Amino acid sequence: MQSRPKSIVFDAYGTLFDVHSVLRTAVHGIAGDLEALSNLWRRNQLEYTWLLALMERFQDFRQITEMSLRASARQIGISVTEDQVGLLMKAYLSPARFPEVTSTLQSLSGIPLAILSNGTTDMVTSAVANSGLTSFFDHVISVDRVGTYKPSPRVYALGPEILRFPAADILFVSANGWDAAGAKSYGYQVCWCNRSNAVQEDLGFTPDFVITALDQITRI
Amino acid sequence: MQSRPKSIVFDAYGTLFDVHSVLRTAVHGIAGDLEALSNLWRRNQLEYTWLLALMERFQDFRQITEMSLRASARQIGISVTEDQVGLLMKAYLSPARFPEVTSTLQSLSGIPLAILSNGTTDMVTSAVANSGLTSFFDHVISVDRVGTYKPSPRVYALGPEILRFPAADILFVSANGWDAAGAKSYGYQVCWCNRSNAVQEDLGFTPDFVITALDQITRI
Repeated sequence: MQSRPKSIVFDAYGTLFDVHSVLRTAVHGIAGDLEALSNLWRRNQLEYTWLLALMERFQDFRQITEMSLRASARQIGISVTEDQVGLLMKAYLSPARFPEVTSTLQSLSGIPLAILSNGTTDMVTSAVANSGLTSFFDHVISVDRVGTYKPSPRVYALGPEILRFPAADILFVSANGWDAAGAKSYGYQVCWCNRSNAVQEDLGFTPDFVITALDQITRI
Repeated sequence: MQSRPKSIVFDAYGTLFDVHSVLRTAVHGIAGDLEALSNLWRRNQLEYTWLLALMERFQDFRQITEMSLRASARQIGISVTEDQVGLLMKAYLSPARFPEVTSTLQSLSGIPLAILSNGTTDMVTSAVANSGLTSFFDHVISVDRVGTYKPSPRVYALGPEILRFPAADILFVSANGWDAAGAKSYGYQVCWCNRSNAVQEDLGFTPDFVITALDQITRI
């Protein structure tokens, strides 16, 4: 029997913020299959975090986001100019929040809330501010503090360290299945927000709760 | 100016052996888009190695190969029975070698050759034996010795440690772009065998040589 969580930690990209909104809504003038480019960009971005973390060659998330954008455009054969890279990197500072985010955070008032993100402090702080969410969060925690990426336990350890609750008393919420597995492996209570009806990752660590949109958290 | 390599270390899967031959040639009776399943299986297999290594939850490559097969079939909606999983896992012990492998290894006689692979010692030793390549290699080195996966420097360190040459005197040959980047980051001379005319990964570590089939090694 698990105790009622004393604090909630949210992943940012994919969970609070829609990374695909960047290519979809920014004014950039890029021609081609933008949905395919956006999917590949996201996949490369994540793979680069895993690879560079394993190589012990950390580069921050802003650098990796730009590297993976350039690589994805080349791989998919879409022409992206330097100006367009600049516009997209700027747009990455204000991705759209998912529609239920604000009302969900309002309904959780009284519980200490934090973000634990691969993003740099600057990137995540900007995204939070541009969505009008700053007042909801007690802490915005970036992997930059430890110089590696999720799903390293060194990243997940930042939650208990900064929030001063044991991991077992913290609910970790992520829409990324591999992130949910990593958080569970570390010892959090875990809620996987399966927005896209994906098949669950089989890494041997199963989330405690599965929801399909964040407003279902209040039922937990 | 780099010195002429004193030894050559080969990656196994994708470089010497065609992982896609397993689903293509094994008698298994699975219906559906087998090429798509094979591509997803390979991608999940690699991602699981990166994720479990970062989570510090090592499982061996046989386990990961089976987990990723099951997950891929579910994700792509192809029905695979327990018997069929067993047949494919058995077939994974004798993947097809690429056509130029034997003649290339023959032409390199006199140079100490080794394999450094994510595969378990059993898996790689079987694949090598089933392709009649055993006599060419002085060492078959598995990541099992260190309990993590490429591109961790702990894996690449096994080459110099076992071959007793500095990494800068060893040519590391891989068809996997991310593996070539990891080996370069560690300090090997690196040859990327770009079999599929892929766009180069941009992880900040560029191979010294690029070929499109292994028989071009002799030109280096």
